[in-house]
Amino acid sequence: MNVLVMNAGSSSLKYQLFDMVTETVVAKGVCERIGIDGRLKDLLVSGKPAFAEDIPLPSHAEAIKAVLDKLTSKEYGVISSLKEIGAVGHRVLHGGQKFSKSVLVDENVIAAIIECFPLGPLHNPANLMGIRACQEAMPGVPQVAVFDTAFHQTMPKYAYIYPIPYSYYEKYGLRRYGFHGTSHRYVAQQALEYMGIPAKGSKLITCHLGNGSSLAAIKDGKCVDTTMGLSPLEGLPMGTRSGSIDPTIMSVMSEEEGLTMQQIMDILYNKSGVLGISGVSSDFRDITSASAAGNERAKLALSIFTYDCKKYIGAYMAAIGGADAIVFTAGLGENSAIIREQIIAGLEPFGICLDKEKNNSKSQPREITGEGSKVRILVIPTNEELVIARDTKEIVEK
Amino acid sequence: MNVLVMNAGSSSLKYQLFDMVTETVVAKGVCERIGIDGRLKDLLVSGKPAFAEDIPLPSHAEAIKAVLDKLTSKEYGVISSLKEIGAVGHRVLHGGQKFSKSVLVDENVIAAIIECFPLGPLHNPANLMGIRACQEAMPGVPQVAVFDTAFHQTMPKYAYIYPIPYSYYEKYGLRRYGFHGTSHRYVAQQALEYMGIPAKGSKLITCHLGNGSSLAAIKDGKCVDTTMGLSPLEGLPMGTRSGSIDPTIMSVMSEEEGLTMQQIMDILYNKSGVLGISGVSSDFRDITSASAAGNERAKLALSIFTYDCKKYIGAYMAAIGGADAIVFTAGLGENSAIIREQIIAGLEPFGICLDKEKNNSKSQPREITGEGSKVRILVIPTNEELVIARDTKEIVEK
Repeated sequence: MNVLVMNAGSSSLKYQLFDMVTETVVAKGVCERIGIDGRLKDLLVSGKPAFAEDIPLPSHAEAIKAVLDKLTSKEYGVISSLKEIGAVGHRVLHGGQKFSKSVLVDENVIAAIIECFPLGPLHNPANLMGIRACQEAMPGVPQVAVFDTAFHQTMPKYAYIYPIPYSYYEKYGLRRYGFHGTSHRYVAQQALEYMGIPAKGSKLITCHLGNGSSLAAIKDGKCVDTTMGLSPLEGLPMGTRSGSIDPTIMSVMSEEEGLTMQQIMDILYNKSGVLGISGVSSDFRDITSASAAGNERAKLALSIFTYDCKKYIGAYMAAIGGADAIVFTAGLGENSAIIREQIIAGLEPFGICLDKEKNNSKSQPREITGEGSKVRILVIPTNEELVIARDTKEIVEK
Repeated sequence: MNVLVMNAGSSSLKYQLFDMVTETVVAKGVCERIGIDGRLKDLLVSGKPAFAEDIPLPSHAEAIKAVLDKLTSKEYGVISSLKEIGAVGHRVLHGGQKFSKSVLVDENVIAAIIECFPLGPLHNPANLMGIRACQEAMPGVPQVAVFDTAFHQTMPKYAYIYPIPYSYYEKYGLRRYGFHGTSHRYVAQQALEYMGIPAKGSKLITCHLGNGSSLAAIKDGKCVDTTMGLSPLEGLPMGTRSGSIDPTIMSVMSEEEGLTMQQIMDILYNKSGVLGISGVSSDFRDITSASAAGNERAKLALSIFTYDCKKYIGAYMAAIGGADAIVFTAGLGENSAIIREQIIAGLEPFGICLDKEKNNSKSQPREITGEGSKVRILVIPTNEELVIARDTKEIVEK
């Protein structure tokens, strides 16, 4: 079966077409500037020429149509007709409390995704546009929704209720949800397989570190805590996001500068994090270079980020009573040796250390545990699209 | 020398008169409802009758005058004239970045306290009123300011800079300051003395748990991190304060309920914490009773509080590479066996456990370390007033 995996943003649409017999990607690409001027690009098709093309993409429906045209075209195509697409799997940001796993899309599921609009105001409407567009373009083809929040639904109540009036939880569902769930779930599973230990009794701390970052504490294979919360703003500092801060900061911003709530949220989402601290860039590669070149504020940004990661690792070890492994994944987690090194530095008293040489090598997946370390340290490339494709296949075949 | 210790709030004034030869309290009491209808009470004078009295206290100056009248009166007095008060020590909430220790009050110090008004809008103006009133009532008597933030000024920059645009730090001094510094400093010192180990090389985690709560990580006798931040709102959930939350919560409160920033801050300061979760009370004694009686939300509030403490202990152990001791102090830390037990539970894999019997005993100061625990667990009553009196005496005698 071929499964098309879709990740629809407000003006973009990323896709991958999987051959699920071999679990390989046969085509992938991205539509950008949908509703603006439109651009379809980087359609990488095995054995076919890559291309990028500016074409009008007034809506997600049009974008999907363009993608399907390419996939079945003589010159670039990888399938002869749409009938070769067995199912479509969609990444959906927020599943609220309704979804603890992936589901076949029907009218109830769509209603629940709409119900979660206030919780994921930027993403959920876009995700739904992707679903609707696929339903229209491929009538009868089953659509599956895979939620970023689902894996975290096993958290105990004391980990997800906020210390605010309880009515906010009851009325608006204000609680910790957590994100990057598909990634945490995937690398946790991979780590257990790699180590050859059963989920039952296992303790993992997974560190999804990228432009957006979150950690999860995973016990018996189930998530028991995570750093992102109601929204993907909480927890670690990120590229442009502040992560957790003293709420009084927002009040001072409002008083001192007369900012509206919306302006404050814009600062916390788009102008904070390592960009805000360093003034250099939101890209950790730029921060790392600037820091190595002696830029004090870039150095500071890096220290703040890695110090916070270290503290969450300590917090989660306390929460689940230790760890079999710490797992690094995503852009930074997979590729930045210096960030991994800074995070693990100082944890030696807990019997945790990494092997510098292995840490600096590039092969993946790999173990970078230092000699004598009681906790194993793994680097595992994440693959959210593959998880979405697998979930989709499994649900459709049931 | 006798030292008068003052803690002036916006409509209250607590005081203790210390005989610094014996370091004993010879009188203490509180003026309430200053500027409202006035009440002077609980003047507990050694060997003299206690009393409470409603008298008009239109201002802090009037309140101080009433206190001084009582202290020197025939019936209740403990000193024969004001000349027997050698100095006055004032608790001041916010010293900003100017003060890393206690100082003799002069016009520059007063200017600096005023500069910190935006950082401590409720407390600093009241603290200053207390200072001014004492200057007026006891001209020529030296006044000393002891700052709640001072002990935390040794934090490294990566622990105190927030991941927001750096200009907010430069322009408005928005950074982590930390509070309860006098208490953390006192119990840390007491713990080192009790254990007979030098500050150099020592690692402590001090847990000041009361109606307001904060933890501090203390290395080599110096604070390197603390849970409260720019304001006393950040960190742990408290009686009525939320502690750290996803900033998006504030945005949702504003959108869903049309609340102003001030109304949101009022909710986070006064209607959140264990009161908000439980709906029962802000008093942990009520919460503990209700929880024991089976109230689910009281139980939840207690779990959230103790789980958060546990996570911060883990975070700080990671930050400073372990701990020689965990020190509990303040109302809850000193008196709630169940809270200490819940916090320490589950830390056994780190070689941390407490002795249940010792934990349940009432004698103080005491050690409640369990058999085989690698980290010692101490309960040490705090005494901020004594520290203020000692600092005051030391500075005045120089």
